[in-house]
Amino acid sequence: MREFLSTAKAQVEAWIAEIVTRRTDIEPINDAVKYSLQGGKRLRPILAMLGCEFMDKPINSLRHFAVGLECIHNYSLIHDDLPCMDDDTLRHGKPCTHVKFGEGMAVLAGDALLNLAYEIMLRHPDINADYVSAIRYAAAMAGIDGMIGGQCLDIVTQNSSDKYLHDVIRLNSLKTACLFKAGLVGGAIACGASSYEVTALEEYSDCLGIIFQIVDDILDITSTEETLGKNIGSDIDSNKVTYVSLVGIEQARGDIRLYEQKAQKALEPFGARADRLIQLVDYLSARSN
Amino acid sequence: MREFLSTAKAQVEAWIAEIVTRRTDIEPINDAVKYSLQGGKRLRPILAMLGCEFMDKPINSLRHFAVGLECIHNYSLIHDDLPCMDDDTLRHGKPCTHVKFGEGMAVLAGDALLNLAYEIMLRHPDINADYVSAIRYAAAMAGIDGMIGGQCLDIVTQNSSDKYLHDVIRLNSLKTACLFKAGLVGGAIACGASSYEVTALEEYSDCLGIIFQIVDDILDITSTEETLGKNIGSDIDSNKVTYVSLVGIEQARGDIRLYEQKAQKALEPFGARADRLIQLVDYLSARSN
Repeated sequence: MREFLSTAKAQVEAWIAEIVTRRTDIEPINDAVKYSLQGGKRLRPILAMLGCEFMDKPINSLRHFAVGLECIHNYSLIHDDLPCMDDDTLRHGKPCTHVKFGEGMAVLAGDALLNLAYEIMLRHPDINADYVSAIRYAAAMAGIDGMIGGQCLDIVTQNSSDKYLHDVIRLNSLKTACLFKAGLVGGAIACGASSYEVTALEEYSDCLGIIFQIVDDILDITSTEETLGKNIGSDIDSNKVTYVSLVGIEQARGDIRLYEQKAQKALEPFGARADRLIQLVDYLSARSN
Repeated sequence: MREFLSTAKAQVEAWIAEIVTRRTDIEPINDAVKYSLQGGKRLRPILAMLGCEFMDKPINSLRHFAVGLECIHNYSLIHDDLPCMDDDTLRHGKPCTHVKFGEGMAVLAGDALLNLAYEIMLRHPDINADYVSAIRYAAAMAGIDGMIGGQCLDIVTQNSSDKYLHDVIRLNSLKTACLFKAGLVGGAIACGASSYEVTALEEYSDCLGIIFQIVDDILDITSTEETLGKNIGSDIDSNKVTYVSLVGIEQARGDIRLYEQKAQKALEPFGARADRLIQLVDYLSARSN
């Protein structure tokens, strides 16, 4: 799986270099957009490729859709990092866009990427009804019923310690799983997936998104412990309520297994067609060990 | 013309009420989106209607496109008003979105509207190649080669007093005329406009956008003079370089006439088909008197 992800990531990088080209002569916005698009795992476009592969279609045919999703993901990171949102300073080991280019330019770079996302998706050479449904699905998953709804919930509840497990699961589902769905399910819809296939892939993506977020929470804690060379366990992020802060690392690891099984079960009816997706959920789950 | 604009505006309001419905149960973002969509002249969707009328097609067929454009316009106002951008407090006579809902929620409400714009445009029931071209055209006009490029230029040059007339014209053209084009030219493209028609409508829209901005500058000065009851003329906005601050009110009024004639000339070959557009440019120009 590691090798597949590395090859697929290289493919996405090549598509981005081909499709997101410099245009305006207004330099700072070009630079800020280019800078913000660097780094990351390219997981959402890779999921679009996997949705396409699941439907047995050539992945190259979905490159505009895939690159558009990566633009949506990266716009959301820029805006999420702003002082008025999460107020972060580092992203992918580099200064955040607003730290490097200023807040105003960061707002605009995010806007530019979101706008560009749709322009790029609509550059697809053969737009049929399935492809339009896929963009509409991605837009819904990125919007107020999806990722933006999750970001809003994050702001509303960020100073509340009165959060329950179901709130955290909902937040992770909206903020992370929805864009995973945009990739995997959107990719499959663009290739003509039936509603039966869509439902199964949605269930799988939901589990994948929740697993991804729990693993991230665990890695946050264990990597900090390693860095500091001592066990400060639950003191980490003590003012941030996460899945792991609510149930502890051991139960969180157990819950990852449950979500993994749920994801596998959702794709059981598809046999070998789902092999790569099963490997992916196993691979991402194993990162928490 | 006043009556036409009033009827058309009522039509746009009805479309917005029909199409932009409440969805998520996450209240603040719903409220912020709804709040931000209130007010304004609805000029961009009206221009889409006029593009459709110019092509002799029923305007109702373009309602998703028109409402999407109004969402794009309103997202740009929310982000433009942010403290890290123009730092305004009032919009359409009411507190700006960030004043009422907080900065984080304003960033998200803008994002939600931009995302929603494309989702709505793609709800059009009969998406053919012309309609896809129209959305792509609107995306280009809204993006870094268009409106966002203009906003970027605004940030870059906002503290510079070393601005020349051609810089101000370019800024107005990008920030204002580009979304006018998205409406009028985009609407015509969706209805199958030829490249000859597109070029003429683009020239007209460029003039209309520049006139609109010069008139706004003049009204800013004259309305403030009236309010204060004395002539403080060029002292108004003395640290903001505008078309009028560079050439003075009298020459600006003369230049409006020149742009008006240029707009009329661009549409001359179309005779009666362009009557309403000619009336519109006359009407908007006359506001400066």
